[in-house]
Amino acid sequence: MQTLGIALMGTGRMAQVYGPKIIGHPGLRLEVIYNPRRTSAEKATAQYGGRPMDDLDAALADPGVDAVVIATPTDTHVKYIERAAAAGKPIYCEKPLDQSLERVDRAMAALAAHPVPFMLGFNRRFDPENAMLQRAVQSGEVGPLNMLMSWSREPTPPPIDYVRASGGYFVDATIHDIDLLCWIAGERPVEVFAAGSCKFDPAIGAEGDFDLTMTTLKMPSGALVHINNSRACSYGFDQRLEAFGEKGMIQTRNHREDPLVRWDGTATEARQPLKHFFLERYDQSFYNALNEFHAAVSEGREPSSTAEDGRAALAIALACAQSARKGAAVAPAYG
Amino acid sequence: MQTLGIALMGTGRMAQVYGPKIIGHPGLRLEVIYNPRRTSAEKATAQYGGRPMDDLDAALADPGVDAVVIATPTDTHVKYIERAAAAGKPIYCEKPLDQSLERVDRAMAALAAHPVPFMLGFNRRFDPENAMLQRAVQSGEVGPLNMLMSWSREPTPPPIDYVRASGGYFVDATIHDIDLLCWIAGERPVEVFAAGSCKFDPAIGAEGDFDLTMTTLKMPSGALVHINNSRACSYGFDQRLEAFGEKGMIQTRNHREDPLVRWDGTATEARQPLKHFFLERYDQSFYNALNEFHAAVSEGREPSSTAEDGRAALAIALACAQSARKGAAVAPAYG
Amino acid sequence: MQTLGIALMGTGRMAQVYGPKIIGHPGLRLEVIYNPRRTSAEKATAQYGGRPMDDLDAALADPGVDAVVIATPTDTHVKYIERAAAAGKPIYCEKPLDQSLERVDRAMAALAAHPVPFMLGFNRRFDPENAMLQRAVQSGEVGPLNMLMSWSREPTPPPIDYVRASGGYFVDATIHDIDLLCWIAGERPVEVFAAGSCKFDPAIGAEGDFDLTMTTLKMPSGALVHINNSRACSYGFDQRLEAFGEKGMIQTRNHREDPLVRWDGTATEARQPLKHFFLERYDQSFYNALNEFHAAVSEGREPSSTAEDGRAALAIALACAQSARKGAAVAPAYG
Amino acid sequence: MQTLGIALMGTGRMAQVYGPKIIGHPGLRLEVIYNPRRTSAEKATAQYGGRPMDDLDAALADPGVDAVVIATPTDTHVKYIERAAAAGKPIYCEKPLDQSLERVDRAMAALAAHPVPFMLGFNRRFDPENAMLQRAVQSGEVGPLNMLMSWSREPTPPPIDYVRASGGYFVDATIHDIDLLCWIAGERPVEVFAAGSCKFDPAIGAEGDFDLTMTTLKMPSGALVHINNSRACSYGFDQRLEAFGEKGMIQTRNHREDPLVRWDGTATEARQPLKHFFLERYDQSFYNALNEFHAAVSEGREPSSTAEDGRAALAIALACAQSARKGAAVAPAYG
Repeated sequence: MQTLGIALMGTGRMAQVYGPKIIGHPGLRLEVIYNPRRTSAEKATAQYGGRPMDDLDAALADPGVDAVVIATPTDTHVKYIERAAAAGKPIYCEKPLDQSLERVDRAMAALAAHPVPFMLGFNRRFDPENAMLQRAVQSGEVGPLNMLMSWSREPTPPPIDYVRASGGYFVDATIHDIDLLCWIAGERPVEVFAAGSCKFDPAIGAEGDFDLTMTTLKMPSGALVHINNSRACSYGFDQRLEAFGEKGMIQTRNHREDPLVRWDGTATEARQPLKHFFLERYDQSFYNALNEFHAAVSEGREPSSTAEDGRAALAIALACAQSARKGAAVAPAYG
Repeated sequence: MQTLGIALMGTGRMAQVYGPKIIGHPGLRLEVIYNPRRTSAEKATAQYGGRPMDDLDAALADPGVDAVVIATPTDTHVKYIERAAAAGKPIYCEKPLDQSLERVDRAMAALAAHPVPFMLGFNRRFDPENAMLQRAVQSGEVGPLNMLMSWSREPTPPPIDYVRASGGYFVDATIHDIDLLCWIAGERPVEVFAAGSCKFDPAIGAEGDFDLTMTTLKMPSGALVHINNSRACSYGFDQRLEAFGEKGMIQTRNHREDPLVRWDGTATEARQPLKHFFLERYDQSFYNALNEFHAAVSEGREPSSTAEDGRAALAIALACAQSARKGAAVAPAYG
Repeated sequence: MQTLGIALMGTGRMAQVYGPKIIGHPGLRLEVIYNPRRTSAEKATAQYGGRPMDDLDAALADPGVDAVVIATPTDTHVKYIERAAAAGKPIYCEKPLDQSLERVDRAMAALAAHPVPFMLGFNRRFDPENAMLQRAVQSGEVGPLNMLMSWSREPTPPPIDYVRASGGYFVDATIHDIDLLCWIAGERPVEVFAAGSCKFDPAIGAEGDFDLTMTTLKMPSGALVHINNSRACSYGFDQRLEAFGEKGMIQTRNHREDPLVRWDGTATEARQPLKHFFLERYDQSFYNALNEFHAAVSEGREPSSTAEDGRAALAIALACAQSARKGAAVAPAYG
Repeated sequence: MQTLGIALMGTGRMAQVYGPKIIGHPGLRLEVIYNPRRTSAEKATAQYGGRPMDDLDAALADPGVDAVVIATPTDTHVKYIERAAAAGKPIYCEKPLDQSLERVDRAMAALAAHPVPFMLGFNRRFDPENAMLQRAVQSGEVGPLNMLMSWSREPTPPPIDYVRASGGYFVDATIHDIDLLCWIAGERPVEVFAAGSCKFDPAIGAEGDFDLTMTTLKMPSGALVHINNSRACSYGFDQRLEAFGEKGMIQTRNHREDPLVRWDGTATEARQPLKHFFLERYDQSFYNALNEFHAAVSEGREPSSTAEDGRAALAIALACAQSARKGAAVAPAYG
């Protein structure tokens, strides 16, 4: 197997998700960890290996670097995409591309000018169960789709600083469901309607953001899509899908760390609460996403989750946010 | 137990639902079946018993008639309510009150002028499982509600003539989910948003009606409510509820005629398709609804599903229909 | 429908099970309640209706009595069967026929001499789910049977006086599983092996009896049958069946009073503990058993649960008890 | 992490299970593959790496070899144990130790004389779910055990040559359930009873062997244990456990490759058939077993599945076989 030398851009939360996955992948080699602050880069290489670098030009020109994985703060994604594309390096970029359509369009222009393989890290497509459901739907197992439904409920609200930088609940979180459901359905909405409340943390409401939302997507085929999101969930990280078509319905069930079924005087057929956060629940899907990146680059084909997918998901998420604010259906601003 | 002599108004589809339930209830006596066409009344009494009558005044004045059960076509409900109220008879009326808010207001005025016990037949409240879920939510078992969800998917679209007279999918069917969820939540929406498609029968679309809908209700508390309805469902009559609160979640599961769990080379843990239509699925709830009517009249108290509930559900359903047509959130026209 | 006038023999625990079922059955008429102690008979008729009688000859000769339901203590069953058969009355007799094969043979001789319709109350055959499973197996749905399994675990041990009079755990309780499984399999064991412990109440062990047993039946076809019984069960009255055949497997699930599915921080997908005792769990099956008796007598055919079935089940249960005591396989003493 | 150089003894079916697991384990190094036939050893090293050797003394003396993994035919296990123990090498040996208690005792004598770390590959203990259930039971979660139950049903009977060399169904297969359940219960039976049939392949019966069995173990505590085994199962590889204690019950469910839940006009809540054979179902547990071996050797402690465990399981399995043949309870011949 051809191994790809990776420059991991960033040393924060998402970089710490990708670090171990890169190390553990037989086709990837963690060559460089880049951070403009050298001490941060050094700390990360001490943990994961690779060479620390704080000079972007040098990192992108390094002969050991075959591709970059961008796991920096969202508002720097576009900059690194432009630089890596100009350097001719294949790019894996954590989602979202950016919080603004204008800046996303800049990134896409850069990719058009320097056509390198580009993959956006919508990791939930690479969750084995979600992928099975998508294949089943696309193979026609349930017939033409009538309804698609997604539940994403997180255990506890993030810190308010995270919320402030997140671009809002729709752009930060619902965008995952949006991308996943459009991918499963094989089409994108002509119109969206969303409703939001602030039920858990008043500080979130004070930012004009929501922590509880319901979203409806109207698809060109007439299929209707429902998404519900909650920043709090007492029983854990609730992640479910339901695809209802003319011939049948398919559902995914939540993952469990503890598969035992318990019976006692208080409860019967009881299962333990759910895996507690996205890092545990989607651990495998991050790995699988990197694997798809490796395969696509090795095979010289386009990765399956594109910049254009990212732009569309952002346009839909922004339309949702607008809809929730003005109480009306909104058509997404596709490019 | 005091038995109530019942005049059953009507001999059509819903009268045939109520006839056997009245006969089977130890506290009710099927005294009269009324139909302006005498032969229809006679045919029905031949089947269910009671005396056939085609003279409304005589029926309402009959000394054996203690109460009326109105199971006539929807557009005649208001007339019979007015007449029965004027005659001082307790009234059980199949839902909906009417398809027009103006006419509903006329019925409510009649009930205000002649305050007889009045119960609207929102039978799904009286389904044992739905009622258990309502009690659990109202007792605080899941804490303050975050989300409520309802699935109502019917096996096959009704004949187009039924659709034409139905007042549209929201007024005909979604109104059940609306009443049920408002009752469970203990509040009514400030705003609704609905989306609809025509996927199964183009003749339904030609009427300007939908056969596939998704509805969002925004509650004053901030709770969000989702309803999905489909006029076709390959696996039977799908009826589910999910109540998600701050402390936990409660779900109801579909009913099954065949409780066996099957394993073979094709499928494992498989269950049979679902009970096939509302008459089978809600057989018990129609009986329980009549039982509540009997109990309320016997105890001299107001039945638990009121005319005002019916008016509110209609206002919400009409707002949904309007929302689905104009693609905007709509505030229901409460009285 | 022809109504049968019933003389209910006995006023104890089982008579109180049958009393309300006889009253509630449209084809049965509770004509007489017989008890040699007149005050007991009078107390029961005050509750259920019918005429109290303490003279057995008079009761069996009463012109209103078309059939008898024997719900007296087990050691009096044979006597009443002999008397009722001699009087030419159809007989429904609560299980077991008797605790001794010799006395059962006496009853069978009486029935041979006076061939009246006779039904033994193995009510579990008439449980709707058990009956569905039997039909599925007999119709060949799972192919030739490999294994049959039955779980019967009771919430709490009975009083020691009940145990003393019960004939032992196998004859009192396992006999139900034995009859049910032989009926489902359509064959009877050539050999049985049973193991027992006393885990819950030392007084039961002091009687030489068990409160925890496992039983294996070897069928002529080569199918193997497993039964497990427990006199204590923390989560309620556990009643399950599993039929494993060459083509597939069918299972029944436990009944639940509360069908809700609950999720919270402690447990997910949790259900409430099980219906608490056989009276609740098998309420329907007692009614259905009487219904079969009524139908068979009305149609002039033999009821589906015969005296011969009862003799065979007893022979198997006694073989189990012997096996558990001597630690060896035992062949049942079929007639 | 200290890496252990492994000499893999054997190149057959089980060696092919262990080869990839050794390669994939970060603490193990596949140093040598030994087979007395050099070409077989060479073919295996071509696939898995390591050096081929056909000289046993040389292999055991090789400075790169820190430990041996014995995956040869069962009747050679004892010989390799004796040689490796004499050479002072830690030993991992695939189960069973041998089919004869006398030869097992020889192996144990060799280990007593040359006390090297020794682990027997009862891999099912190392299945994550089985291990969770064992911990739950041992921690007292269900209270004192009343009953333990195990289902092991294989998709299709093995070739008759395999059966002939297997030592019989109890020694080949039931021994897994026996070891697992004794480990979970923390005690070993005082007496066993087993029943067997030949239902699927007459050639198996012609060998005096069974392809369908039920086994009862009586534990010193009074707990009763049930095992059922089948050489054929239409819906896949059925592997379940049920632990019923005074405080509650815990069950494991079957593993599934396809976690989707399907609803259509034929079946609802349906799941796909089960993972198809032990290699897929217990893939993780083989890895975990090697991991335990590595950890124990690295930490200088005794591995958790001992030669004595293997002797006891064999004694119990042989008692089962004897019991099934003579139709009587048998006490295992513990050392």
